[in-house]
Amino acid sequence: MENKKPVILVTNDDGITAPGLHALVDAVKDLGELIVVAPDSPQSGMGHAITLNQPLRLDKVDVHGEHDWYQTSGTPVDCVKLAIDKLLHRKPDLCLSGINHGSNSSINVIYSGTMSAAMEGAIEGIPSAGFSLLNHSLDADFTTAKAVARKVAMNILRHGLPAGTLLNVNIPDVALTEIKGMKICRQAMAKWQEEFEERMDPSRRKYYWLTGKFINNDKGEDTDEWALAHHYVSVVPVQFDLTAHHAIPFLNEQSYEL
Amino acid sequence: MENKKPVILVTNDDGITAPGLHALVDAVKDLGELIVVAPDSPQSGMGHAITLNQPLRLDKVDVHGEHDWYQTSGTPVDCVKLAIDKLLHRKPDLCLSGINHGSNSSINVIYSGTMSAAMEGAIEGIPSAGFSLLNHSLDADFTTAKAVARKVAMNILRHGLPAGTLLNVNIPDVALTEIKGMKICRQAMAKWQEEFEERMDPSRRKYYWLTGKFINNDKGEDTDEWALAHHYVSVVPVQFDLTAHHAIPFLNEQSYEL
Repeated sequence: MENKKPVILVTNDDGITAPGLHALVDAVKDLGELIVVAPDSPQSGMGHAITLNQPLRLDKVDVHGEHDWYQTSGTPVDCVKLAIDKLLHRKPDLCLSGINHGSNSSINVIYSGTMSAAMEGAIEGIPSAGFSLLNHSLDADFTTAKAVARKVAMNILRHGLPAGTLLNVNIPDVALTEIKGMKICRQAMAKWQEEFEERMDPSRRKYYWLTGKFINNDKGEDTDEWALAHHYVSVVPVQFDLTAHHAIPFLNEQSYEL
Repeated sequence: MENKKPVILVTNDDGITAPGLHALVDAVKDLGELIVVAPDSPQSGMGHAITLNQPLRLDKVDVHGEHDWYQTSGTPVDCVKLAIDKLLHRKPDLCLSGINHGSNSSINVIYSGTMSAAMEGAIEGIPSAGFSLLNHSLDADFTTAKAVARKVAMNILRHGLPAGTLLNVNIPDVALTEIKGMKICRQAMAKWQEEFEERMDPSRRKYYWLTGKFINNDKGEDTDEWALAHHYVSVVPVQFDLTAHHAIPFLNEQSYEL
């Protein structure tokens, strides 16, 4: 009889050495046959970037004596593409990305390499989710996030996800006993207000560092930001059909004659 | 009296030397005060990437003797952020991206640097659109695309766009007389099927080039793919609220107890 354990692809954007990736693997390793394919260096803020203009490397690495870890020179999205085409030669049953060091709630979903990897899984028709802990530091405590990731993975394996959707799961940086529960939410309509920091290099040429302030004017109690501020885990179903269907009638009223 | 000409920010992902960018500038230059801020090198496939881990350069360049062109070392999204924060110190009235050398229809909207720049404009609350011609070559004929870009820009300046939406405009590679019209569409549910090409370097280490086949199983006549195949310009309203609202009831039926 065939082995019926589900195949679980695990990736991230913080790179193969990130503690959050190892926490995710630890959280779900008994739920299926795992394969880990992660970038060889941090890829935060990569959005849905793919590598078109240079070749990619894909190398097996020896992690914890387990032999199903690979690193690539590409982006998180490249990792998912390479895993399916070059390693698995089939679609995995589940694609999990994270656990990201830092939030991917509200508008961050757009910039996030973590979420783009999960979205690439969903585009491939694989039930997929991305996980992010609201703590950027390398020595963050992933205990709560691991319990959440495990529960979400079990739910997806059991119930599946509606076609064309994936999950964006964000976890407050508090002890498991402080978590009020998990809340299905919508993406808050928040944004970053940019403030580039201007500096001068030794040759007297200017350069800029991207910094910014997170601005949330969306006070809806059905948003991920509200949930996280009130110590709920936020679970936002995300789609890759970006069509603003409600805008179609407005546009159809206009003349588009050339 | 103040100058009331609209301020138009123009950017792209093929870089500041790309003919498509110059075609876009040429098409709309009399509609307002233009500022061009584009990457100093091609950034195709960059998705919504931002530059977090290295500083950015921003330099004025002399193009056609006009002095409102800038190049950056960043991604298309960085260009929009830098233009607003460091050059304009206000929001432009319109943000146009392109004209991309190659299609950004259907699922390509997700991977596209062109569309991500326009989306960044929309996130900032600026009426925004991205333009793409279905021809990858550097010496493509942009005559049709220019007429389209001009018409769309005029419509947006006149009617605005619904909050939280931008336009994804794709143009068939045919003469203007062959164009059947412009069609408001939804994004076709198509995808790329990856086929990495495997090669061996001189040190006998493998490397991979991303290639792929475009697979469209969505035959809807309301899709951008249908429109383009029938020589219509496709205009898809796009949103950055990625919430799959229809999936919320499905998820709420499940137990999410930790």
